[in-house]
Amino acid sequence: MKTLIKNIAELYTGQQAESQKSQFILIDDNYIEKIAPMAELTLADEYDRVIDAAGKMVLPGLINTHTHSAMTLLRGYADDMPLDSWLQDKIWPFESEVSADDIYWGTALAAIEMIKTGTTTFSDMYFAMPQVAELVADSGMRAVLAEGLIEANDGQAGLEKALEFACEYNNTAEGRITTMLAPHAPYTCSEEYLAQITDLAAANDLAVHIHISESKKELANFQKDQQRSPIKFLADINFFKNHVVAAHCVHLAPGDLEIFRKNKVNVSHNPMSNAKLANGIAPVVDYLKNEINVGLGTDGVSSNNSLDLIKEARMAAYLQKIKYSDPTVLPTDQLLAMLTQHGARALNLNNVGELAAGKLADLIIINIDQTSFSIPRHNNLSNLFYAADSQVIESVMINGRLVLDSGELKTLDQEKIFYEVEKRAFKIADKLKGVSNE
Amino acid sequence: MKTLIKNIAELYTGQQAESQKSQFILIDDNYIEKIAPMAELTLADEYDRVIDAAGKMVLPGLINTHTHSAMTLLRGYADDMPLDSWLQDKIWPFESEVSADDIYWGTALAAIEMIKTGTTTFSDMYFAMPQVAELVADSGMRAVLAEGLIEANDGQAGLEKALEFACEYNNTAEGRITTMLAPHAPYTCSEEYLAQITDLAAANDLAVHIHISESKKELANFQKDQQRSPIKFLADINFFKNHVVAAHCVHLAPGDLEIFRKNKVNVSHNPMSNAKLANGIAPVVDYLKNEINVGLGTDGVSSNNSLDLIKEARMAAYLQKIKYSDPTVLPTDQLLAMLTQHGARALNLNNVGELAAGKLADLIIINIDQTSFSIPRHNNLSNLFYAADSQVIESVMINGRLVLDSGELKTLDQEKIFYEVEKRAFKIADKLKGVSNE
Ligand SMILES: [Zn+2]
Ligand SMILES: [Zn+2]
Repeated sequence: MKTLIKNIAELYTGQQAESQKSQFILIDDNYIEKIAPMAELTLADEYDRVIDAAGKMVLPGLINTHTHSAMTLLRGYADDMPLDSWLQDKIWPFESEVSADDIYWGTALAAIEMIKTGTTTFSDMYFAMPQVAELVADSGMRAVLAEGLIEANDGQAGLEKALEFACEYNNTAEGRITTMLAPHAPYTCSEEYLAQITDLAAANDLAVHIHISESKKELANFQKDQQRSPIKFLADINFFKNHVVAAHCVHLAPGDLEIFRKNKVNVSHNPMSNAKLANGIAPVVDYLKNEINVGLGTDGVSSNNSLDLIKEARMAAYLQKIKYSDPTVLPTDQLLAMLTQHGARALNLNNVGELAAGKLADLIIINIDQTSFSIPRHNNLSNLFYAADSQVIESVMINGRLVLDSGELKTLDQEKIFYEVEKRAFKIADKLKGVSNE
Repeated sequence: MKTLIKNIAELYTGQQAESQKSQFILIDDNYIEKIAPMAELTLADEYDRVIDAAGKMVLPGLINTHTHSAMTLLRGYADDMPLDSWLQDKIWPFESEVSADDIYWGTALAAIEMIKTGTTTFSDMYFAMPQVAELVADSGMRAVLAEGLIEANDGQAGLEKALEFACEYNNTAEGRITTMLAPHAPYTCSEEYLAQITDLAAANDLAVHIHISESKKELANFQKDQQRSPIKFLADINFFKNHVVAAHCVHLAPGDLEIFRKNKVNVSHNPMSNAKLANGIAPVVDYLKNEINVGLGTDGVSSNNSLDLIKEARMAAYLQKIKYSDPTVLPTDQLLAMLTQHGARALNLNNVGELAAGKLADLIIINIDQTSFSIPRHNNLSNLFYAADSQVIESVMINGRLVLDSGELKTLDQEKIFYEVEKRAFKIADKLKGVSNE
């Protein structure tokens, strides 16, 4: 099937910082065949589908490098609490009641939110991954999936299951699903467990997804117990020999930056979650100065509380400006790069994150003249990142398929999903209320 | 005219931190006559208009305590720049080309954005205030207006004009407009000029709106030149004898907090602007501990880049959690209070900011089951502040009049306003481009 997107008012391919005016994109099934100025469009050609993007902006699809998508079930369930009580009294008890079916529906709600806010690819670390994969297949999204492994809960059986999932589901759903292994964090997995995962990842050519140095306490505990930072510990056990995407990375010890640089570790920066849980502001400007690759992630909804990457990018920019007392850092072209090419690189995906002939057709079409936030059009990228709501996201294409078409979801039944999620979330909350009232 | 809002699923009156379920509000012209549970609704009564708020949340209208609304003309015109160059090469040259008519249209765009994001009252400090007042009259909004005074630009003639405006327009537009005097800042107005304004405000029973301690540099310069902070300087000249609303207040010297407390100074906290310009994070938690009244403001769009108070409140919460390394500070009920009662108090308005019999009917109706952001409904206030977009704002009533009715603007012509703003903004930008290219 041949699709033509014509009359694109402003196109960011992700390859230049500058945009191009009046372009077309020709798509052959799920691949981009050609991008060129409208003047070069051969009218004699035939297209199965024509999308008119007059007055619109087109960007590569946005990439969420770290989330736990089914945590949508917990949106607003526990906020503004001390960290320990939040986890022990609220999040963990709730999660212990969540079924594999609940995960399917929670991920479905996440998919609605991600699609409507312009996300085409997400990297998920959670449980019941076969259900997540089913939803990814159904929704048309692209995803990098990994069973999260906490040694005390999952042990050897969990690791076997995670590996089995990773091997079985890699490159499924027309190639939209790839997989990783995901030890939760250096403080929830032993040296032996991490070494085992490292070897299994290498043997099976899998990348690794992990949380590192999220809180001051994590760094302090490692320094007290082991006289080294978590990052130094991981380097010492050769954990970084595989492709690694590391979420958070807020608190560094001297030398950690150099370890990341040398080992080409990919950072998933999660500014909203780090702010809401009061963990601090990651040193993103230092990462970029040291040519460390940084993508953006939302983390789970319980600490965000949305999956909107435009909001995430805005927060990233504003927090870095504060951290470095410098209004010039993390300008909008860098925000776009982090959400697209850099995100793709972090997730070990070679065919998305930019728009060019031969790349997969993952892109978003943005309305730049229909909301107050996008007027006047002095700078459409600035209006998108610094002013707009997700209302401006009009259409979303993943793998050549329109999953959002002029605001209309094409693959997911919103009414049914809202109903199922709320029914299931309330059932768990009610049960736990009963328990805590006893 | 009698209006009934019935079946309100969740009502925050602003008087309790807790919400009330299944309520009605009876409105007589522009005043609230009664609020009570649905069970007490007398069916025999007659109403000229009935609004069904089944499944919806109702809040007091939101209050923006500090903005320069016509700066919408500059949205996205200059971002990510060093502060001095941003002002001198971009903002000031642009503003010098702005006409009084441009101000009308820029304010009209601001009004669209404010109404659609749930703001019912705004406090404006800018120029061409008669045009702003005209737009306020046309739009149905409530506003506190003041000509901003920079001594070098405005001098005695400007002060006279500002006083004349304040006296002539106070309590106009059915009482929706009140006025203040607004010296720009202690570093742009001399001691004599500020003393003069203080006396004129006292003599004419006007409150005062000012910027204080926005940047580190402002504090450092005062300490170097005068061996005292700007706040101490203002206290010494008895500036705080009038009702004062002070924007920013980011950087304090020892003793400043006590001056604010003793003099009942009202702080307008502007976290987005302070972040985007890399000025830092105001000590809001300390203000609240010292019982200093704090409202929220967006500042102008050129440093924000929107006028959305829900985004502003979220940023306030997340930045305070970071500043104090404490996830429990500034919870959602405090955000709501800052946006409503505390904002009203900051602006010296006694009849808005909460919903109760005898108060003016300024309120917003919020959709809590139509977007992914608001599902599941574990906590609707959390979903509003931590997850939602302004898409959830369904209807807005100001002074008993619906200015937004189920998403439809009732007082402003959006298409015409978008057209006028862009035409005028582009004309100025093009002219300045010509100049800078010479
Ligand atoms: Zn996480
Ligand atoms: Zn200001």
